[in-house]
Amino acid sequence: MPMPDESVHPEATGLAKHTVDAHQKEEGIVFWSGWFCPFNQRIWMALEERKIPYRYHEVNPYKKEQKFLRLNPLGLVPTLEIKTSQGSKALYESDVLVEYLEDLYPASDEHPSIFPSDPYEKSWARLNVQHVTKKILPQYFKLQQSQDAPSQSSALQALYDGLRTLSSRVKGPYFAGEQFTAVDMSLAPFVRRFYILEEYRAFDHKAVGEGWEGYKDRLLARDSLKNTSSDDEHYFELLQRYLKNEAQSEVAKATRGGQSLP
Amino acid sequence: MPMPDESVHPEATGLAKHTVDAHQKEEGIVFWSGWFCPFNQRIWMALEERKIPYRYHEVNPYKKEQKFLRLNPLGLVPTLEIKTSQGSKALYESDVLVEYLEDLYPASDEHPSIFPSDPYEKSWARLNVQHVTKKILPQYFKLQQSQDAPSQSSALQALYDGLRTLSSRVKGPYFAGEQFTAVDMSLAPFVRRFYILEEYRAFDHKAVGEGWEGYKDRLLARDSLKNTSSDDEHYFELLQRYLKNEAQSEVAKATRGGQSLP
Ligand SMILES: N[C@@H](CCC(=O)N[C@@H](CS)C(=O)NCC(=O)O)C(=O)O
Ligand SMILES: N[C@@H](CCC(=O)N[C@@H](CS)C(=O)NCC(=O)O)C(=O)O
Repeated sequence: MPMPDESVHPEATGLAKHTVDAHQKEEGIVFWSGWFCPFNQRIWMALEERKIPYRYHEVNPYKKEQKFLRLNPLGLVPTLEIKTSQGSKALYESDVLVEYLEDLYPASDEHPSIFPSDPYEKSWARLNVQHVTKKILPQYFKLQQSQDAPSQSSALQALYDGLRTLSSRVKGPYFAGEQFTAVDMSLAPFVRRFYILEEYRAFDHKAVGEGWEGYKDRLLARDSLKNTSSDDEHYFELLQRYLKNEAQSEVAKATRGGQSLP
Repeated sequence: MPMPDESVHPEATGLAKHTVDAHQKEEGIVFWSGWFCPFNQRIWMALEERKIPYRYHEVNPYKKEQKFLRLNPLGLVPTLEIKTSQGSKALYESDVLVEYLEDLYPASDEHPSIFPSDPYEKSWARLNVQHVTKKILPQYFKLQQSQDAPSQSSALQALYDGLRTLSSRVKGPYFAGEQFTAVDMSLAPFVRRFYILEEYRAFDHKAVGEGWEGYKDRLLARDSLKNTSSDDEHYFELLQRYLKNEAQSEVAKATRGGQSLP
């Protein structure tokens, strides 16, 4: 019997489908992508924001096919395959990939950077990507998977806390000011999925506090987010397994066991 | 009653003490350091390898003093204080700090880089720093704190696995070849403390397998590691609390609870 997560909808829908269709021609970078994955969407947004040529290749990471595992032994999307004259190489982990794209296509008019240019501000951005990944996301997944009221309520408060800290650091309109950066991109795909928390976990944007609602509206309105997003119903199809704590992904198992995210 | 970790030896000893004494004059970068901390030693090694001017400032992170928490709300060493004409700013998290120093002092003869210059190799190095932090270190801490034979044995095997994977990627003499990089630096401070695992946890370098012993000898022989290391007895004084699973640090608590490291 296939694990439930294997039977995810096979491809992107909505605006994301248009973006997929526009990226079918051969390129030096092949983006091994799972349309549904928020970590994956970080890199998809980065590719779009920075106007980097890539070929989109859909993969179901839950199937752990050999040709995918050869590129990424961890079996996770996002994975980038880099074609060279000597064959293919690969890189993975969303935070590493963001840096890779930055090094490969240094900031220019054609390829705007998603980091501030000042060394301090750049590292402050990196630190806040870590804040999102290490402090906010574990609570997001915990809230989603918790089945009883006390654990839901403690995850909800901890999620508000993490968002509040980030929110208090937003210069506006985006995290680092006018520039849309890796910090915004690290969080936006998750915020895109918060509608499910609103419906099933009493999540309330207002409760985060001052500044948050405007900021999250700006994230949700960003073209690179919209153009890489599929239809709500297909996210829900997948995420309802998390709501019932039945998902079998690495993230779901780690959350269930109280361990660190993959 | 102070928590036991608060009563750590107050300052560096041995060769590390000489390095401390040589870095007492005012500089733009103040290194808030805990002499005993392996994460901290990564940055100390980076500062030394890259010949970056800094003032050494010893801090006991377990005391959580206000002036320290104002710089780093997480209350962890390493923390860098950056002095500007408008006052002080701070950055923290060893992996972020390594990148910051790289941006602040771009590779030059005077300040050799600790990353390969090729974008792919650079990101491959970053990925392997993550391998050390996410796959090797949790097992290192688990092995140290486990009290019964079955959990010690499973942590030991998992630690060997993680080291083996890394070892198989070492180009030699160092991870990326001739150049000593952030990957070597991310692991060396922990390898420096493995003598305690050999004595109390049946850790055997031979069991890691081919290539490992030569590599770890080269790490241990590196000047930047030796010059930032204190005397064995003082590491032991602190680490014996981990061996008894009595340590109260964030790392110890996370390990005890099976959660992700801070
Ligand atoms: N740390 C990774 C996490 C990526 C990740 O968790 N991807 C999930 C999909 S959202 C995946 O590929 N899961 C496969 C599995 O769980 O087996 C990153 O930041 O890129
Ligand atoms: N993720 C951090 C970890 C640093 C860390 O855990 N530092 C420890 C000392 S080894 C600390 O400051 N602990 C204070 C505490 O546990 O309260 C990094 O890579 O810099």
